[in-house]
Amino acid sequence: MKENKRDNRYCVIMCGGIGSRFWPMSRADMPKQFLDFFGTGRSLLQMTYDRVLEICDPSNIILVTNSSYFDIIRRQLPDVAIDNILLEPARRNTAPCICWAVHHIYAKNPDASIVTLPSDHLILKEREFLRTIEEGLDFVEKGDRLLTIGLKPTCPHTGYGYIQLGSPVEEREGIRKVKSFTEKPNLEMAKVFVDSGEFYWNSGMFLWRADSILKAFGELAPEIANVFDAGIKAYGTPAESDFIAKAFPTAPAISVDYAIMEKAGNVYVKTADLGWSDLGSWKALYECSPKTAEGNVTQNCSVLTGDCRNTIFATEGDKIIVAAGLDDFIVADTDKALLIYPKKDEQNIRRLVNEVKDRFGEKYV
Amino acid sequence: MKENKRDNRYCVIMCGGIGSRFWPMSRADMPKQFLDFFGTGRSLLQMTYDRVLEICDPSNIILVTNSSYFDIIRRQLPDVAIDNILLEPARRNTAPCICWAVHHIYAKNPDASIVTLPSDHLILKEREFLRTIEEGLDFVEKGDRLLTIGLKPTCPHTGYGYIQLGSPVEEREGIRKVKSFTEKPNLEMAKVFVDSGEFYWNSGMFLWRADSILKAFGELAPEIANVFDAGIKAYGTPAESDFIAKAFPTAPAISVDYAIMEKAGNVYVKTADLGWSDLGSWKALYECSPKTAEGNVTQNCSVLTGDCRNTIFATEGDKIIVAAGLDDFIVADTDKALLIYPKKDEQNIRRLVNEVKDRFGEKYV
Repeated sequence: MKENKRDNRYCVIMCGGIGSRFWPMSRADMPKQFLDFFGTGRSLLQMTYDRVLEICDPSNIILVTNSSYFDIIRRQLPDVAIDNILLEPARRNTAPCICWAVHHIYAKNPDASIVTLPSDHLILKEREFLRTIEEGLDFVEKGDRLLTIGLKPTCPHTGYGYIQLGSPVEEREGIRKVKSFTEKPNLEMAKVFVDSGEFYWNSGMFLWRADSILKAFGELAPEIANVFDAGIKAYGTPAESDFIAKAFPTAPAISVDYAIMEKAGNVYVKTADLGWSDLGSWKALYECSPKTAEGNVTQNCSVLTGDCRNTIFATEGDKIIVAAGLDDFIVADTDKALLIYPKKDEQNIRRLVNEVKDRFGEKYV
Repeated sequence: MKENKRDNRYCVIMCGGIGSRFWPMSRADMPKQFLDFFGTGRSLLQMTYDRVLEICDPSNIILVTNSSYFDIIRRQLPDVAIDNILLEPARRNTAPCICWAVHHIYAKNPDASIVTLPSDHLILKEREFLRTIEEGLDFVEKGDRLLTIGLKPTCPHTGYGYIQLGSPVEEREGIRKVKSFTEKPNLEMAKVFVDSGEFYWNSGMFLWRADSILKAFGELAPEIANVFDAGIKAYGTPAESDFIAKAFPTAPAISVDYAIMEKAGNVYVKTADLGWSDLGSWKALYECSPKTAEGNVTQNCSVLTGDCRNTIFATEGDKIIVAAGLDDFIVADTDKALLIYPKKDEQNIRRLVNEVKDRFGEKYV
């Protein structure tokens, strides 16, 4: 084991997703994680990267993404070494992504402990986040434990997964066994969940030792483990990318929640309040953004409104919007497309994006 | 007098205006007359030019514009000789503009008859237009007469000037003496005008012989005549532009309607039905555009709508709009600004443009 605890700590940032719900701001060639949603000058990915620099050395931060996003990542995070960017040759959900990243790290450092993070979420309470991750890593480093971060729900959100808390393990650090996972419940059930106080939102952040999660893959997801175990001699060598090019597409597309977390017996949850949102939709973005007296939100843009309420305005670049007479709308504008849509109907946007693709072509979506 | 009637016929196209009511499509550096409103590939100015090629030789078509639009005009009408583009060094409304153009033509051909046209109007009935202009020129060429074209009103429009018809002169050609001019009446009065059948819209198109209108300037608007008479030796010579640079800004800013037409005794009106609109506002453009079953109009753009009604959508370039839940809106989008505004409140747009200028800067208006 290396001398310093910090030297064994790694961070895997998953940044290969496509998000169609933020169309037209997010498109297949520029998904949500690369967007500067809050006009701060940093994209969600960049903010995620900045945040984890406190947890581990830059050389221990690994990005896993689709090969088509290599150029964007180089542009947004020029300091990341090319060797630390793992390019998936195909989209296979989170389990293969994580399995590869862990093998890659394990080959360099078998004592590694790893925090795996989505790149497209909002975290407002950075200090609380860092404390949570530090304590979580301390916890998983002590044994064969898989840890997820559970967030206290603020509303009966039907778009999130829920974690049911089990018995306390180390009360001091707010860590519990996980009793069950439930994917996106209906509103009625979500209300029961929230009222019970027993259910927390699943953040999609995972902490474990490299050996623990590799063992779990072997036991619970052999169809994935077999694919990646075959490359043990290649990881960390020049042969790695050739191996991945052939092997990766043969792995089944499964989420790590489904492949591992819902099945494993050693799964724990650390509860936290991080000022978190998965920014899964315009509505979610609206909810977590500062509002004018009329309830309007402006993203990245100068807006002159008359008689507009509860509306979110988003543009790219140096553009202005003049609007009146809108209530509860999404107004999102890019150089390729303009969306003006009732916020309450935002669940239709995914379908609309498909219709746009069919009618006007790939370049718009 | 030259041999051929056509050789004595000239056309003056006034294309120096700024129109803020079509913001953001029209801006100070790209006013309405230069826009391709109907996605036909030709701007309103180009369509005006194409139309008058039937009336006179290209060498007899004179454009009068503000000097700042020289480049746009060269781009849009590359066939027009530079000598035929008169560049006003200042904005002085229509009377000085016309007085200069007439002097310029008179110096070349004292037997000239001239039709003077705005460049930013829509005319759907081209054959009727040509017939009207031909007959009108025949009429003014016979004597000292100032002729305007009056359009049969289709609604009590409060944005137009009205011409009250007097006694018939040459019934066969639909020409009457003018009894009175009335600028933009209120709605009540406009209704009375239209119901009476005696009032026609003032199209801003004028026909006269060069000597007739110069005489009228001398008699009725000496403050303008004096300015331009001083250059008689310069017109048609290399000294013309130097003379204009000094003299033009000293002319008062007055419309030709006010300076001449409302005062002259020899004013006539030829009535016509030209499928005409001055395209003075989004609403006017909406009214004269083809509509979907839901009453929507799309200008230059691909639109995917759900539950939108009576709305006009306009974009620049190759952009799509996805919209729902809009009724009676203007949606106008450029690379600099996006306007989403209730159509019924469009009279506010002029004020808004000023507010935009104050708050966000010149470059947006």
